[in-house]
Amino acid sequence: MSTPATLVNPPLKDELDIVIPTIRNLDFLEMWRPFFQPYHLIIVQDGDPTKTINVPEGFDYELYNRNDINRILGPKASCISFKDSACRCFGFLVSKKKYIFTIDDDCFVAKDPSGKEINALAQHIHNLLAPSTPLFFNTLYDPYREGADFVRGYPFSMREGVPTAVSHGLWLNIPDYDAPTQLVKPRERNTRYVDAVMTIPKGTLFPMCGMNLGFNRELIGPAMYFGLMGDGQPIGRYDDMWAGWCTKVITDHLGLGIKTGLPYIWHSKASNPFVNLKKEYKGIYWQEEIIPFFQSVVLPKDCTTVQKCYIELSKLVKEKLGPIDPYFSKLAEAMVTWIEAWDEINSPASESTAPAAVDVKKK
Amino acid sequence: MSTPATLVNPPLKDELDIVIPTIRNLDFLEMWRPFFQPYHLIIVQDGDPTKTINVPEGFDYELYNRNDINRILGPKASCISFKDSACRCFGFLVSKKKYIFTIDDDCFVAKDPSGKEINALAQHIHNLLAPSTPLFFNTLYDPYREGADFVRGYPFSMREGVPTAVSHGLWLNIPDYDAPTQLVKPRERNTRYVDAVMTIPKGTLFPMCGMNLGFNRELIGPAMYFGLMGDGQPIGRYDDMWAGWCTKVITDHLGLGIKTGLPYIWHSKASNPFVNLKKEYKGIYWQEEIIPFFQSVVLPKDCTTVQKCYIELSKLVKEKLGPIDPYFSKLAEAMVTWIEAWDEINSPASESTAPAAVDVKKK
Repeated sequence: MSTPATLVNPPLKDELDIVIPTIRNLDFLEMWRPFFQPYHLIIVQDGDPTKTINVPEGFDYELYNRNDINRILGPKASCISFKDSACRCFGFLVSKKKYIFTIDDDCFVAKDPSGKEINALAQHIHNLLAPSTPLFFNTLYDPYREGADFVRGYPFSMREGVPTAVSHGLWLNIPDYDAPTQLVKPRERNTRYVDAVMTIPKGTLFPMCGMNLGFNRELIGPAMYFGLMGDGQPIGRYDDMWAGWCTKVITDHLGLGIKTGLPYIWHSKASNPFVNLKKEYKGIYWQEEIIPFFQSVVLPKDCTTVQKCYIELSKLVKEKLGPIDPYFSKLAEAMVTWIEAWDEINSPASESTAPAAVDVKKK
Repeated sequence: MSTPATLVNPPLKDELDIVIPTIRNLDFLEMWRPFFQPYHLIIVQDGDPTKTINVPEGFDYELYNRNDINRILGPKASCISFKDSACRCFGFLVSKKKYIFTIDDDCFVAKDPSGKEINALAQHIHNLLAPSTPLFFNTLYDPYREGADFVRGYPFSMREGVPTAVSHGLWLNIPDYDAPTQLVKPRERNTRYVDAVMTIPKGTLFPMCGMNLGFNRELIGPAMYFGLMGDGQPIGRYDDMWAGWCTKVITDHLGLGIKTGLPYIWHSKASNPFVNLKKEYKGIYWQEEIIPFFQSVVLPKDCTTVQKCYIELSKLVKEKLGPIDPYFSKLAEAMVTWIEAWDEINSPASESTAPAAVDVKKK
């Protein structure tokens, strides 16, 4: 998977955007240059919009700061978080491509056990282009990988699989732990390279991390809303979790698949566990009710699009999670606003006013 | 995991039996000697009972041939398959231990990527003694392994896990493929060592292979019935699949877990695909109805023991699968016979007539 991206035709070059939320100069891109340079970047600048973010020479990008977001979305900008990496979903909204890869700016190129640099993007593309198998577990992991297949006893009628909507990659070095685990195990590093990709079975929720994530925007884009986090909100660090729970319920309903495992990135820096604890603590007890809620969600049969599913889910969130805290009613409303914004920006009629046509900072 | 079994105290030495079904001399045990010798073996001799099976010197074992099975079980011996490795479940029945490890006689010691010989038994014990996490997916695999934990977003209330009932190990070299896949990919070998153990989520079925399998006999023993296969039956090579489907439905109902992944064994010999096709072909189309059946099974709340679950399941098999073929009515009856045999052999009252007291070939 570490074929250099400098090949004449990098896979899906014109069909994939790389979305990066950031508050700092993007020096980390230097390391990714051989793999990312052929692709278009969408940079979502968080925090102070007057700050200048340096992007290394030679990358093709558009950059949006808070002023841009406010201008493009108007009052609907309220659904996009501020001072939280949840703002990345604005990049998903304004992309015009079929696929998205999103990565944090503290994620570097990892090496496989042979010492070869891992082209994470190429592996995500590989994952997204092969089917998923959510209906039955294959003990030899991804049956579509070279050297693997379906094992004895796997029903033949299920071997075509279903379209893959999401590719969830993992992290070497700093594992994605919550604040309590960070506090208890400050020195734990993930050194285990597990050479597997697998489908998360239907009906099973998982903790989706937004650090190293690919998805098919056409299949699942509108569900990739990272919620209300950060500035003015009672929680943080649950943005990707929220998107993951919603996405899993909707992919299950629509007959799509989610893969997890390869590729690894090298996660360089542990965030501050004390700061994280402050952001997380409400989420830590709220999730004890949120998880059973998502486990029990049944979407009506007439929800045949991601948008319809998501609006239905917003109603259920208001009804079932609203009683926990007023935050969830606000979140449910933001979910609706998000879909309205998505449809506005992505409708064929809006092409002329699409963000690509407005004055964003372009290379 | 490759700590030599020659340590003073091999783990669970007096609480685990190794069950081996065979039709040939057990020379393969030589390779396993450092790991298996401290343990007690239960050898189930299949086929011609007049044949003598040689067991290498120094192993502690009891051996049962068909005559022994008939004598011990009387008319209930009808539930034990003949001329099929499904006969292994007789060994589960007569064991007096808490844990079982069962392995095929064409399985050798595999090596991990560093070249170290893998003590498969020690890894199974490790898997069985640590909890499982069937209720929520952990993206860093087994959270109880050294160097791993639950990731951010994993509900804290679920972190104690549930007791592990089954440890399903994998195979390097010859993968466990069905006859059609064997025919299509005669040269495929499994060379990918995936360094992971994971729980199969609740509600998800999997193809359980009996080649390299550990389980907690106290927790799940009576569900480990390998069905009616081989001599006089319309199918073969679905014995472990049958046990796996039943076991998964029952562990899900009882709140127990099943792990899969490590340890690997080295599977030395591909069985004949033409012979396999003959054994499998009915299973291949029957399973298209069997899988949806097992996916839909809901056991009543008052089924609080494995035996009660299994009897209930036998009724459902007769009712729902009986219409497919008279075989399933016969199988449903054999399931009941199996439970009767299990309870007879394992009741406290039967201790005096327990197999250990009858004239079996002992070392």
